[in-house]
Amino acid sequence: MNKSTHSPDLTLLSRYIPRTPSIGSTTVTHEDHVHLSFGFAAPSLFPLVELEHASGAAIRSHGQEALQYAGAPGPAYIVNWIKERAHRNGIDATPNHILVTYGATQGLALAAQLLLEPGDEVWTEAPTFFSALQAFRLSGAHIRSFPLEADGLNVELLEQALQQARTAGRPMPKLLYTMPTYHNPGGVTLSVAKRHRLVELAREYHFYVLEDDAYGELNFTGELWPTLYSLAPERTIYLNTFSKIIAPGLRLGWMIAHPQLIDRLRILMLGGSTGVFTQEIVATLLQHIDIDRHLEQLRTHYREQRDVMAAAIDRHFGDAVYYVLPAGGFFLWLNFREAIDTTSLQQRALDYGVSIVDGRSFYPERDVHHQLRLCFSYCSAEQIEQGIARLAAAYRDDRAAELGEVALTALEYHNGA
Amino acid sequence: MNKSTHSPDLTLLSRYIPRTPSIGSTTVTHEDHVHLSFGFAAPSLFPLVELEHASGAAIRSHGQEALQYAGAPGPAYIVNWIKERAHRNGIDATPNHILVTYGATQGLALAAQLLLEPGDEVWTEAPTFFSALQAFRLSGAHIRSFPLEADGLNVELLEQALQQARTAGRPMPKLLYTMPTYHNPGGVTLSVAKRHRLVELAREYHFYVLEDDAYGELNFTGELWPTLYSLAPERTIYLNTFSKIIAPGLRLGWMIAHPQLIDRLRILMLGGSTGVFTQEIVATLLQHIDIDRHLEQLRTHYREQRDVMAAAIDRHFGDAVYYVLPAGGFFLWLNFREAIDTTSLQQRALDYGVSIVDGRSFYPERDVHHQLRLCFSYCSAEQIEQGIARLAAAYRDDRAAELGEVALTALEYHNGA
Ligand SMILES: Cc1ncc(COP(=O)(O)O)c(C=O)c1O
Ligand SMILES: Cc1ncc(COP(=O)(O)O)c(C=O)c1O
Repeated sequence: MNKSTHSPDLTLLSRYIPRTPSIGSTTVTHEDHVHLSFGFAAPSLFPLVELEHASGAAIRSHGQEALQYAGAPGPAYIVNWIKERAHRNGIDATPNHILVTYGATQGLALAAQLLLEPGDEVWTEAPTFFSALQAFRLSGAHIRSFPLEADGLNVELLEQALQQARTAGRPMPKLLYTMPTYHNPGGVTLSVAKRHRLVELAREYHFYVLEDDAYGELNFTGELWPTLYSLAPERTIYLNTFSKIIAPGLRLGWMIAHPQLIDRLRILMLGGSTGVFTQEIVATLLQHIDIDRHLEQLRTHYREQRDVMAAAIDRHFGDAVYYVLPAGGFFLWLNFREAIDTTSLQQRALDYGVSIVDGRSFYPERDVHHQLRLCFSYCSAEQIEQGIARLAAAYRDDRAAELGEVALTALEYHNGA
Repeated sequence: MNKSTHSPDLTLLSRYIPRTPSIGSTTVTHEDHVHLSFGFAAPSLFPLVELEHASGAAIRSHGQEALQYAGAPGPAYIVNWIKERAHRNGIDATPNHILVTYGATQGLALAAQLLLEPGDEVWTEAPTFFSALQAFRLSGAHIRSFPLEADGLNVELLEQALQQARTAGRPMPKLLYTMPTYHNPGGVTLSVAKRHRLVELAREYHFYVLEDDAYGELNFTGELWPTLYSLAPERTIYLNTFSKIIAPGLRLGWMIAHPQLIDRLRILMLGGSTGVFTQEIVATLLQHIDIDRHLEQLRTHYREQRDVMAAAIDRHFGDAVYYVLPAGGFFLWLNFREAIDTTSLQQRALDYGVSIVDGRSFYPERDVHHQLRLCFSYCSAEQIEQGIARLAAAYRDDRAAELGEVALTALEYHNGA
């Protein structure tokens, strides 16, 4: 009897585990595919030489300590670096306000665990970041979402919903998740007036804002946006990450929140500090690179990539689509004027050698959506040109097929099928 | 108005967050203290030179990929290494059975999340690993525990409890957490007969066994123990870690379970792979060190340290204590014959310059316990000698003070105070 072929007992699993991973399928692609689906940083801009130097130096100077649980001076250096960087962005934090995490992804999971019990309300934008949706589903919370506009979350609808819920005595949200600056996937940014209104609502209706600022430093215009945290520190849990400004493979991010919340978030980490060896290396790296120069390079590069993508879209799609030109970040959110099913387009696009992410991956209810996400950060300018051309061909084909199918269906109908 | 002094709204927090971190206090110690509390690996045995070489080589050969989300060849190499190592230890696994985690600590958190909803039953040993208790508390589950004996978990009591719960129609456990081999803190090992009985019970009463094998490779006697996973793969979720065999600062561990469970555990990780940059480095390291020789060095070293500690205890404490000599791992669990309060002894020991962990940190209900945990892995032989001598002095002092207090109380009583 081969015991390992026994099936496991799935009846014992928690009810709150989503059945499907988020956008797993788009990672299965071929050599010559153009990956407009990958929300990845540009590998050519990773500071590899500096990182190699930093690794050697960190191991030589702090190896023994850096390899223990608590680590060497690195973790404290990083907290201090975060504190000073946050200060430049208008955030007043002490080391007690800061928790280093395994990327902003862990920040999402921890914020959900900190607040949400099964049945609680968590409110989000729609579209929103898929990993956040997964984190909220896992907590067993009920997700309700509010549309994005060209200037970010529709705060008016949010306010109406809050009023109605209060009046009707329905459960109020504990948490509102938002990406105010350079939205993933929306590419939009919340206006300053709406930022003020949003934190007023958080105060008035007693919920926390989970502010995901993963792309905040990747600003193409020089315009500065006040973080929600700076407007209402006692009502905001702030997330950020080294993934977009250094490299995602490091898996380092951070949370900023009131020390009383940070204390509890630390308890959620079960006493384990986040990758102290990696922190030591990154601390050494941060001591040796000119971060402002590095960020300027990233901004210039990503802005150019965005422009290449926008021009290609205009050329290949013309009036069939519309979008808000992103003022920062990695993503362009493409809206089709016709109500097409982008999940079917995503499949066809793969046949044409280009990967994209369909709209439905970003909505809590997985309906059909006539939108898709394009990422301009990872591919080269030539690949972006080629990818958009392929996508346009796939789109024409998809439309033809759909019209063909409709025609066929109509024909079958007439034949009495 | 200084907004950052506003208190956060604690009424919104999940009810399941433990109020206190586990044994946080023992990390606050002085320069010249002897840390018999730290469950840390011996830093002198970290393969630092090899690690420095591996870091440089990994960044040079795979830097760009290793720094993206999915990583380079490293993660697959590590999964394969785990597969082959597990095979030698009697575990039949394919890559689909394996998930690399941020240490066994994340394995505990994920197993809890996979199965437990608020109100569910999770059963443990007592004493048990404190971070596991925290993970279970966080899930809102009800924890029930069963005593350890010299040959591990009291399986008979477990069986009675299962029978009674079934007969009475009370909730059955979804999960039993156990450290069968070289227990933390108990230092004991589950007998082969009990291993067989335990997995039979898991099959009969339909629960999962969470087998924590963190110390399995650190075997001082050459005796081999069958893992519970090898006896009932469909009923076991197996945890292990590089923390004890390479270094904890890497924060890398792994889970082995049925692929249907691993798929769901991956979903719990929200699509993020565990530190791929670190994995690339560790993969390169594993290709270049002779792991069997390295493990032999660790075993020899830790066995010697254990012997030093046991001899010092016998010399300083004599008949006042008893313990089971650990046949592997990091820990010696010291039982006092008198019913002393080791929490008070822990405090006094700090005054004498030695840190230990009191018994109560390892029990689900935080009662007084006349036991404490000593770790022989981290300190040098000289420090161990000195630490035990200091602990004995603190103990004598504590006893004197307690008797003094009793005398005083008696005196006060007679004086009608
Ligand atoms: C909005 C947003 N938040 C969080 C993350 C996760 O980032 P990290 O790599 O730090 O986990 C991403 C990455 O794609 C993101 O787009
Ligand atoms: C029994 C046991 N399990 C798990 C762990 C956690 O190990 P890791 O460093 O892999 O998270 C430890 C570490 O002390 C342990 O003793």
